[in-house]
Amino acid sequence: MARERLVVIGGDAAGMSAASKVRRERPDLEIIAFERGPHTSYSACGLPYYIAGMVDKAESLISRTPEKFREKYDIDARVLHEVMEIDPVERWVRVLNRSSGKEWREFYDHLMIAVGANPFCPEIPGSDADGIFGLSTLASGIRVRRDLEEHRPRRAVIVGGGYIGLEMAEAMILRGLEVSLVTRGAEVMETLDPNMGALVSDALEDVGVTLYRRESLEAFEQKGERVSAVITDKRTLPADIAILGMGVRPNSALAEAAGIPLGIKGGIIVNERMQTETEGIWAAGDCVASHHLVSRRPFYIALGTVANKQGVIAGTNIAGGYATFPGVLGTAVSKICRYEVARTGLHEKDLKELGLQFISSTIRSRTRAGYYPGAGAITVKVLAEKGSGRLLGGQIVGEEGAAKRIDVLATALQAEMTVHDIVNLDLSYAPPYSPVWDPVQTAARQAVKEV
Amino acid sequence: MARERLVVIGGDAAGMSAASKVRRERPDLEIIAFERGPHTSYSACGLPYYIAGMVDKAESLISRTPEKFREKYDIDARVLHEVMEIDPVERWVRVLNRSSGKEWREFYDHLMIAVGANPFCPEIPGSDADGIFGLSTLASGIRVRRDLEEHRPRRAVIVGGGYIGLEMAEAMILRGLEVSLVTRGAEVMETLDPNMGALVSDALEDVGVTLYRRESLEAFEQKGERVSAVITDKRTLPADIAILGMGVRPNSALAEAAGIPLGIKGGIIVNERMQTETEGIWAAGDCVASHHLVSRRPFYIALGTVANKQGVIAGTNIAGGYATFPGVLGTAVSKICRYEVARTGLHEKDLKELGLQFISSTIRSRTRAGYYPGAGAITVKVLAEKGSGRLLGGQIVGEEGAAKRIDVLATALQAEMTVHDIVNLDLSYAPPYSPVWDPVQTAARQAVKEV
Repeated sequence: MARERLVVIGGDAAGMSAASKVRRERPDLEIIAFERGPHTSYSACGLPYYIAGMVDKAESLISRTPEKFREKYDIDARVLHEVMEIDPVERWVRVLNRSSGKEWREFYDHLMIAVGANPFCPEIPGSDADGIFGLSTLASGIRVRRDLEEHRPRRAVIVGGGYIGLEMAEAMILRGLEVSLVTRGAEVMETLDPNMGALVSDALEDVGVTLYRRESLEAFEQKGERVSAVITDKRTLPADIAILGMGVRPNSALAEAAGIPLGIKGGIIVNERMQTETEGIWAAGDCVASHHLVSRRPFYIALGTVANKQGVIAGTNIAGGYATFPGVLGTAVSKICRYEVARTGLHEKDLKELGLQFISSTIRSRTRAGYYPGAGAITVKVLAEKGSGRLLGGQIVGEEGAAKRIDVLATALQAEMTVHDIVNLDLSYAPPYSPVWDPVQTAARQAVKEV
Repeated sequence: MARERLVVIGGDAAGMSAASKVRRERPDLEIIAFERGPHTSYSACGLPYYIAGMVDKAESLISRTPEKFREKYDIDARVLHEVMEIDPVERWVRVLNRSSGKEWREFYDHLMIAVGANPFCPEIPGSDADGIFGLSTLASGIRVRRDLEEHRPRRAVIVGGGYIGLEMAEAMILRGLEVSLVTRGAEVMETLDPNMGALVSDALEDVGVTLYRRESLEAFEQKGERVSAVITDKRTLPADIAILGMGVRPNSALAEAAGIPLGIKGGIIVNERMQTETEGIWAAGDCVASHHLVSRRPFYIALGTVANKQGVIAGTNIAGGYATFPGVLGTAVSKICRYEVARTGLHEKDLKELGLQFISSTIRSRTRAGYYPGAGAITVKVLAEKGSGRLLGGQIVGEEGAAKRIDVLATALQAEMTVHDIVNLDLSYAPPYSPVWDPVQTAARQAVKEV
């Protein structure tokens, strides 16, 4: 009799977390993982630091190779294998070995879809020129670094002012390039409110990035095969290399073709156990729609932490256990040279769309006691519900030691605390780490007055 | 008709927070604050850094001078004025002007007691020799620094392995002294469990402190007026200067003499509004007993954060408003050179005393993604209730970026979260700040398996 088989599509965070969890709980199961790229289980979030040269070898970003999965976990992880089709009725997937060109059907008892997301690349003139890069897989990061080393570009243009834009701007600055960044928004970081985003815009300019706000990408100019300029609705920016940080889209076409229902922004719909609406098929990570804990509505986010957690939850359930994923807050943090940016929960634009009334409090403080050497600036914003005082979101921009404080607000959000509760939190204090009132509490104190 | 009058005893964190809050709410009230020392509103927690020379001037530690209180806040703050007696029936205090020697009665409508705590100094042979210092007030810190500059001691002996001991050891190391530290415990930091305390002991030795464990102070030897050695039950340690970090005792004798009831460890008993059991008299800060949120029992702690919060609560109530202080977790953080130590909630000894069954999980991780430059070691311990999984406490020892994570556990404790809840927290992640599973979540994940 054939062994019960789990097939995993996608060899990174969500897929391999699920596979590893299933292996721990069910030593008897056969587990095969297909990854269309050449690598498994790597840190996509580490790519900017590899590209910057802060991390020497691409291998450092890999936590487990296919060999390790096979030898240590008895997981048959096959790279350069792409799943082309899912048959949810007969329970097979059609697999293409991208090296040999061979195709076949692999039957499954359980199927885990963890195919991630693709960077958005608009179809505009010149977009297929050499020297234009989106960033998603380790392979894409290796291509960017090789390009920097082989072509020695002098001028980089980053399109998009989100995390990837910010972190790639830092990488290019560290590489010694002249860096411009184009964003559609009034400020970079549109997941922050404009008053906080303006601080990030200032930080970018402070570290040497030339910033073009309220500009849209229209086309790329090329010289021969290679990009030579980025054209916006307002100007032509000479570019030896262009990086797209225009967001990502869930890679859900394969699931859609199999009739698996999709939700917000094309993310695969899953329940709290990470089960799709199709029997025997599970999904997790950047390809699924999540539940937002503050808005209590569907939400799409592509983040490694969420993918890892959802993968473990899916694995637990596939193995016959029981686990649920409560949802996300959209917590994120980013670094641009000596500046730190973090956010969690909802921001003003979200709240207005939801029709929630809120008060907001933005305060300036220091990362350490004012007299302690190295005390840096920190600005904290909290948003709270009018009347109830329920925390709705938080944003932080500051210098060293600023950003990780967002975790207090994320924890408070998950606990549905009010700003009043936050004022009375017994947080740690010593002069090297904080003023006597932690900046998040100072922000909450101000909010309490207005609730 | 005389103005309604608030008299505050004690011119530091709790007292002046209360006075300032009352002033904001009640511009009409007369406010007099008596401080027996020469300074108001300073950071006692900053003393080790002033003594180390990292902070140049003692004035930098002062947030508001008596002049500022008078001019900006209309608060009559009088330094070198000691309150000798309280009459709670006729509602007056007897005040001694320590400069002029003059005494008089000052009547009050509301009385705020915020007299802090005194460092414990055992009555043993030689304890009044020169060169032996406890650390509490700004004046005491100035004395230590002056002693270092004038007497140029070569060998320092620190007695006590708590926060003050640790931070003073760092200060003396930075001053270039040979430093020994004597502690009664099996390890330093007895508010941590021994397995975590051992890491702090190692850290101390690593930065050059000679550590003597399980030794008790018995006497001081002196040469002329000055200390020349510290004598323990096991050895004689030559000492040119000795620092006592043997804990503090609430300075509650004045209250006790007035018939105000005292509680745990001699702290003044207050209700959640910071009201003593005596009509018209309030108290806050290091002189009061607190409520512990995890043990749900009385608890004594002397910390600036708590004093500030309690002061504001007392001030709100004195001014006729309404505010309550929920209680404390015993959260604390400390730095010893490149090492960081933090704790919150209950530790194993507490739990055994309370008869609670618990599981504990200690994990080692990194402060940043493993491949990111500067990723340091971090050890996290969590304690959770058997069965329910309710978080009971947390401890962290590690390198740069480790300690402030304790705030996530403190927030989770205050929200009565389980370790299961912590695993699913949506905490921030980027390679410069954390591995993809934050170390506190890694510790919680391991605990979940055993609950």
